[in-house]
This record gives sequence, structure tokens and C-alpha cells, in this order.
Amino acid sequence: MGPIRPTIADVARAAGVSRTTVSHALNGIGKVDPRTRERVVQAAAELGYRPSLRAQRLRSGQSRTIGLVSSMPVAVAGGPSKLGFFMEVAAAAAETAMLSGFALVVVPPLDTDPPLDALDIDGAIVIEPDQDDPTTKRLQSRGVPIVTIGPQQGMDLPHVDLRAPRVGRLLLEHLREQGARRIALLMGSGHRSWYVDLAEVYARFAREHDMPPLVVEADESGGEETGREACAELLEKHPDVDAICAAVDAFALGAVRAVAERGLRIPDDVRVATRYDGVRARTSTPTLTAVDLNLAQAAASAVELLLANLKGTEVPQVISNPDPRLVVRESTRRG
Amino acid sequence: MGPIRPTIADVARAAGVSRTTVSHALNGIGKVDPRTRERVVQAAAELGYRPSLRAQRLRSGQSRTIGLVSSMPVAVAGGPSKLGFFMEVAAAAAETAMLSGFALVVVPPLDTDPPLDALDIDGAIVIEPDQDDPTTKRLQSRGVPIVTIGPQQGMDLPHVDLRAPRVGRLLLEHLREQGARRIALLMGSGHRSWYVDLAEVYARFAREHDMPPLVVEADESGGEETGREACAELLEKHPDVDAICAAVDAFALGAVRAVAERGLRIPDDVRVATRYDGVRARTSTPTLTAVDLNLAQAAASAVELLLANLKGTEVPQVISNPDPRLVVRESTRRG
Repeated sequence: MGPIRPTIADVARAAGVSRTTVSHALNGIGKVDPRTRERVVQAAAELGYRPSLRAQRLRSGQSRTIGLVSSMPVAVAGGPSKLGFFMEVAAAAAETAMLSGFALVVVPPLDTDPPLDALDIDGAIVIEPDQDDPTTKRLQSRGVPIVTIGPQQGMDLPHVDLRAPRVGRLLLEHLREQGARRIALLMGSGHRSWYVDLAEVYARFAREHDMPPLVVEADESGGEETGREACAELLEKHPDVDAICAAVDAFALGAVRAVAERGLRIPDDVRVATRYDGVRARTSTPTLTAVDLNLAQAAASAVELLLANLKGTEVPQVISNPDPRLVVRESTRRG
Repeated sequence: MGPIRPTIADVARAAGVSRTTVSHALNGIGKVDPRTRERVVQAAAELGYRPSLRAQRLRSGQSRTIGLVSSMPVAVAGGPSKLGFFMEVAAAAAETAMLSGFALVVVPPLDTDPPLDALDIDGAIVIEPDQDDPTTKRLQSRGVPIVTIGPQQGMDLPHVDLRAPRVGRLLLEHLREQGARRIALLMGSGHRSWYVDLAEVYARFAREHDMPPLVVEADESGGEETGREACAELLEKHPDVDAICAAVDAFALGAVRAVAERGLRIPDDVRVATRYDGVRARTSTPTLTAVDLNLAQAAASAVELLLANLKGTEVPQVISNPDPRLVVRESTRRG
């Protein structure tokens, strides 16, 4: 279990002074005779004494730790390898936090409520919370400053803007350019701002192109399977659908299965595109057209925004992420 | 910045008692009159008072936080999406830790030394440390209990055994089954136990099959590019090489490029296989044959082993991970 950690009392004994003197000598507080100070520093070094981080932090009121909290159900955010949106943000956020002297605690998607109250954190980043997500409220009630990636509907929280309307436009215009004339929208239930923005962009796009809107919803907690079911029903009712824009990558995988089960080909009969250019999009058969959201940049910005707020620095409370970029793959590339 | 947090003094004032009484009433310490206790609890609830986690932890001597530390250079562990070995372990470890009431801090690969001394952690998991890795020594000198994933050469640390010899056998035997007769080993510099075990297995395999051993080393910090260079030189000197077993996935990508640059085909002329079945192996062109190491299981076992050691529970100090499984892909599948 490693060596027993020397205490301030051990240093005091070795230097022949009081514990208060040790504390003052090591922290540069009060008046300590230079020779005494020298003796204390030497005793501390010989014993391998390091002041308790926790005690220092208790005094400073800071844990120098921030949390990164998922708001997605396991069915969407999990998956076999769990290497999704959340972990991609976590990798970049951990790096930025660490280089700023903060530790990052990751609160991954869980089937149970995450034990948020047990986290000793100075602030938190919550990823794409739903309008009714209880996470941000719980954290706020504890006085924990929050930054979200993607705004939370109905809340005025500092956030990184993932450019949802632009992302929606990129996907829909690309599908149309690839020849699609009857594009259906496969949405998640709930009111994440990404869904709300995408639905608006889709409605406008449909009006512009005289395309009767066709929106189906799948329950996030069912992941790929509910996406497949919703899409199968859609294709049964509307056999003229020639493209599916899936709000969530897990649903897109379900859509791919539903299309294949009807004996249709991708992309010749039905094109499929989704938002997040993650492992699912890149390893699906066929590979899926998706959007590079610049998540690493979003994660770094979220950490910087949170740390600026912790310091009380005057900062703009919304950081706009760089332009998203379409990544065209087999699921929409014809011929 | 959220509401100002009520203190124990606020509760004491509201309940008309001393701070000691508040502490005793809320923590069930000493003798407190039931009606007084009721008044304190109500005052605390009305004010939204929660005892400071940090103060509680200072008393208990526990942070209930564990660290997960990478030991790989950025060139190998990073990459564009950073979704590699480290983050795959992190996802599963965070989940297991959280369900056990512990937070997981991730210390990702950094170009600078990670600020380990600033981490307030009860214990740490270090992934595949090199023989000379300073990380484990620094943590040990602070008295931080450590578990490693993959043993550290020359150290007697509790660890999860990733079954390196079995993994090496799977790769080499598969390459031979696919017709390879001159298999070269593309190693990383350093003395990670995976390298040491793989080199031994390779030497024995070469003897068994009367195959002259052919081992080249690339510097980890160069990632894909040093893998390419080492492999180009190898193919120049030994044009009869018909398979490359790459110890690291970044090197395998370099090998794929070197083979293509010589105008050779994969797998017809040269087969390529690597250890870690991650995003690189799955999204490479061609896709790479690799091994499913059961990393999620290894991560969960490492967390459990560490927490058992923190509790002082008697546990076996080595946990053997389940059988690794070969995942055959385009880079070795012929015809």
C-alpha cells in the first residue's frame, strides 16, 4: 500500500518547532526566522513531507477538478466500444483541463442516475442536455457553475455552439444534391437543442423545395433498434422516400438495416446521412456520410469557458464552434 | 456563478445553536436533543446546506477519486480523433468506478509531463508502463497505490494480465495460416511488457518454423511515420518479407503505406496484422486484422483490483483477462 505519509507533526518534531511554525514556514505566512525556516524546509525535504492537497484545497475553496457529464442514454452513448461522442469530447477536454492545472472527472452514460452529489468539482461541462435534463438543475442547486456543449433549451447557460442549423443544412442540401427528392427526418424523442434546430431547418428546407415534410421519432433509449423500427414503418407507409437524415448515429445504423430488410440498396434507392462523424459512421457497412463537428475544438472551448467563469473573468458566454464540414461516404455517394 | 453556498455557521444561526451542535446533529455524533436535531435538520434543508465534501474527505483521508494515467506518447495514443486504447479503457473504467462510488480522473497523453503531483487521488491505474516509466515511481513516492494494465517489467505491481503471449501467438499463427513464410516483427522501442513478451513469442515461433527472425524497431514518439520508415527499410533489405506483425497500430498504418509505396499489394504480396483492434485498425484502408483484447473487461478488473487494494481486502494481485480473440480483416484475408 506504499509508504506511510509523513504528517506536519513529524516535520515539527524533526525541526523542533510547533506545527503552526511549520505551516507558516512552508507557506510563507507570518514571520519566521530565516534559520528556522531553513531547518523546517530541510526537515520536510528529508521526511518527504508534502502538504495535504485536500487541506490546501479546503482552505482555497477549490478542488481544481471539473466534471464532464454525459446526458445521453447508454443505448446511444454506449455501444460495444463506447468510443462515441462523449469519449471524443472527454479526450480533448481532459487534455485542455490538465494543461490548465485542472483534473477532469468523467461521468459517463450510466443506466442509473450518476452520483453527482458525491463529486467534489469546481464546475461541470454537460453535453447536449435535453430541455428537461435534471443534471444541470442538480448541479446548479449545489452552486456548481455549468457550461454546456450545445445550448440547453429554455436555459441561459454559457455554452459552446455546435452550429446545429448549419449542420442540418449541410446534410439536407447534400442529400438533395445527390438526387434525393423525398427526404425523411429520423428524429430522437425529447427536446435537445440539436433536435429542435434540426426540425426547424428541415421544415424550412421542405417549404423551400415544395417537399411534403416527413418526420418520424424514435426513442433514444432504444438506440439502433428503435431507429430500425421507426424507419421500417416509415418505408412501409412512404415507399417513395429516397433519403433519410438521421439525427443520431445509432438511429442511422437502424435505418441502414431497415432499408436492407426491404431489399432496397444504399445509396441507389435510399441515401442515408447522419450528424456525428464517429466510429459508428466510419465503420458501418456502408460507411455513412456525416459531419465533422470539430468536437475536439468544442471540448477545448468548453473547458476554457468554464475555467474563465470559475476565475470570474469577463468572457462572452457563448463560443461559436468553427464551421462544420461534411464528410461524404458510401451511404450517399452514387455511381 | 450560481448561488453562494450556505455554511455551517448559517445553519447554526438559523437554528439558534452552536456550529458543533449542527455538526453533531447532522453527522449523528454525540448526544443531541431530538427536537434540537429536528430544528437543525430543518434549518439545513431550508438553507440548502450540504456539508463540504472536501472537509468530509479530509477527515476520512479519502478523496474517493482514482486516476487513469496513460504512458504512451501522443504520436501513438493521440491521433486525429484521440479515440484509442486509452479512451477505450477510460470509458469502461469510469463506469465501473462511478458505480462503486468513485470518480475517475483521466490523465491523457500529453506532450509535457502530466502534473501528477496536483492530483488528489486515492489510487491510480497506469496503462502499460514502460520498464523505465517514471510515472509509477512518482506515484509510489507519494504513497499512491497503483494497479497497471499489463505488467510493468521489473516491478511487482498488482496488474491485469492482457495475455500478451497468447495475443502474439494468435497473430503469428494466423499470418502463417494465411500463407506467410517470412514474417517480420515491427516493434516499438522500449521495454513495455507487451514488447518483451511479443519478442519472446516471436523468437520461439521463428525457431519452431525454421524462419530466420527479422525484427525491426521504430521509435514510438514518431508514430505512424517512424513505422513507415522502419518498414520501408525492411522491405528494401528483405524483399522476401511476406507478412508484417506490427506491435502498435500506428506502426501498422505506417507499414500499410510503406508496402503501397513499393507497389506491393496487401494482402496478396504482404500481409499486415496488428495487436489493438481500435479505430485505426477498423478504419484503415485496407481494414487491419487485429485482436480483441477485451479492454472493457480489463478496465473493469483494474478498477476492482485497485478498489480492493484501497480497502485492504485480501485479493489476488494479478487478474488474468479473458481469452483474446482474433478479428480477421482485409489486410490478411486472401482471395
